[in-house]
Amino acid sequence: MDIGELIEKNLEQVFPDNSGDTVIDAARYSLLSGGKRLRPRMMFMTSKLLTGEDTIPDDVMYYAVTLEMIHTYSLIHDDLPCMDNDDLRRGLPTCHIKFGEGFATLAGDTLLNSAMERLLKMSYKKPSYSYASLRMAELAGISGMIGGQSMDLMSEDMKIPLERLYELQAKKTGALIECAIVTPYYLFKADSFDPDNEDDICDALKRLAAHVGLAFQIRDDILDVISDPSVLGKSTGKDERDNKSTFVTLLGFEGASGRLDEEIGKALDVLSYLRDKGYDVNEYVDFVEYLKNRGT
Amino acid sequence: MDIGELIEKNLEQVFPDNSGDTVIDAARYSLLSGGKRLRPRMMFMTSKLLTGEDTIPDDVMYYAVTLEMIHTYSLIHDDLPCMDNDDLRRGLPTCHIKFGEGFATLAGDTLLNSAMERLLKMSYKKPSYSYASLRMAELAGISGMIGGQSMDLMSEDMKIPLERLYELQAKKTGALIECAIVTPYYLFKADSFDPDNEDDICDALKRLAAHVGLAFQIRDDILDVISDPSVLGKSTGKDERDNKSTFVTLLGFEGASGRLDEEIGKALDVLSYLRDKGYDVNEYVDFVEYLKNRGT
Repeated sequence: MDIGELIEKNLEQVFPDNSGDTVIDAARYSLLSGGKRLRPRMMFMTSKLLTGEDTIPDDVMYYAVTLEMIHTYSLIHDDLPCMDNDDLRRGLPTCHIKFGEGFATLAGDTLLNSAMERLLKMSYKKPSYSYASLRMAELAGISGMIGGQSMDLMSEDMKIPLERLYELQAKKTGALIECAIVTPYYLFKADSFDPDNEDDICDALKRLAAHVGLAFQIRDDILDVISDPSVLGKSTGKDERDNKSTFVTLLGFEGASGRLDEEIGKALDVLSYLRDKGYDVNEYVDFVEYLKNRGT
Repeated sequence: MDIGELIEKNLEQVFPDNSGDTVIDAARYSLLSGGKRLRPRMMFMTSKLLTGEDTIPDDVMYYAVTLEMIHTYSLIHDDLPCMDNDDLRRGLPTCHIKFGEGFATLAGDTLLNSAMERLLKMSYKKPSYSYASLRMAELAGISGMIGGQSMDLMSEDMKIPLERLYELQAKKTGALIECAIVTPYYLFKADSFDPDNEDDICDALKRLAAHVGLAFQIRDDILDVISDPSVLGKSTGKDERDNKSTFVTLLGFEGASGRLDEEIGKALDVLSYLRDKGYDVNEYVDFVEYLKNRGT
């Protein structure tokens, strides 16, 4: 089974099919409506980098599924009319278009709550994983992703300074990407990790995440301008219509492309550092190159 | 400091004042907008019953604040136009009326996520509390409160059988009440508690919670019919307007009052059982009597 199929198979097992509960149906609909599964894939790349093995440990898969649940809830709420008001996501009607706003709101709540139940269950069974669990929740919360969404909503119809856009994006998209890239490290080091005394590998993974996160977001802003909605699977041209501050609107198309190249370069530098430490970084190098030119 | 002031003081410390973040302001607004704080009070009553002491241990307060955060998020999302569409809560404009729907949605997400961060932080610091934390999350989730909200939304504009109303309410309001009444037991028994082998005190507390939860909800349905909004602090007469199935619409006013008396009687029976076991249940007895006639 290839890795994409493996992820889908594990996501399918989160909620029962035909539960008779519309909220579960709505949560399942959004969780299983495709997507690139970039965050699980990043988690697996770090896992392979650290272990040197192709097999994904069950616990890494467990956290990857949990992270994808958090990511999916954030998309459902973000797509609501009171937020970004998007009808189309991954080429399909968004959750509230399909199930109505009430069920979509509860479906998001359910995905978030269920993700946290998974983290708490893991902490209960394996106390040494408690830091990994706590860190995922923090990165999803007001000091991470939700904090970025809040800055985003406060910046509506407003030109914001570039520095603020960096902070916003580091939280809004960067936090979960950091979670994806660093979590396997916390899991493998569970018995000896001291959050107050991080080592250089953990630090390198965090730097890699910061550059990958920015590269991802800059390319996203570029795609909003150059893509066709039927290819991208979501609305395009929205940023300009909504008078949104993005890397393209603040830096111009050329400027944003230049910044993308810079972030890609810095990510590759971190990977060189890790290669020098003896890690096989080839898959990550391919991934970073892909981020530069991805079309969806 | 009386217990009410103590709760407010602890709730005030959850989020910083003047954070500059509208989502935090919105979450803080709803968290600090009064309310009877019934769930924290129930938690303290169980704490006192079990310890025989008036002082509230810090850890019990920590869980009480966390539960009130979960309760508050559920009210914010429940009040949204796409759900119950309420403008008034605790005598004040609801969160989305004050801050707009986008910020209200995120404020709810933040309260839920921050509550879960608190639970995970506690599991990290005190692994023996992991079961109490996990159980709170489960009772808040799709097998508990959210599951009840989902049943509620699926039952809109529909007459449902009485049995289904019991199940709905046991989840929608009952789950967090169980959490309030039982959590201190999990905390005090943290080092020896086996969830697969509950003792009779734990079982008695769960039975007490089931009767208290139903009594609370039946009285709520009665208050919706007999109260003045200015006294109740929220809209009234909504159930009939919304064609909602409640204990009053299904059983009639007399029938519902009779059921309320029955539940109060059963709750008092459990308290007698606990008294016979040597526990001081006087405060709980007063509370159960209050539930019968409460006016807000």
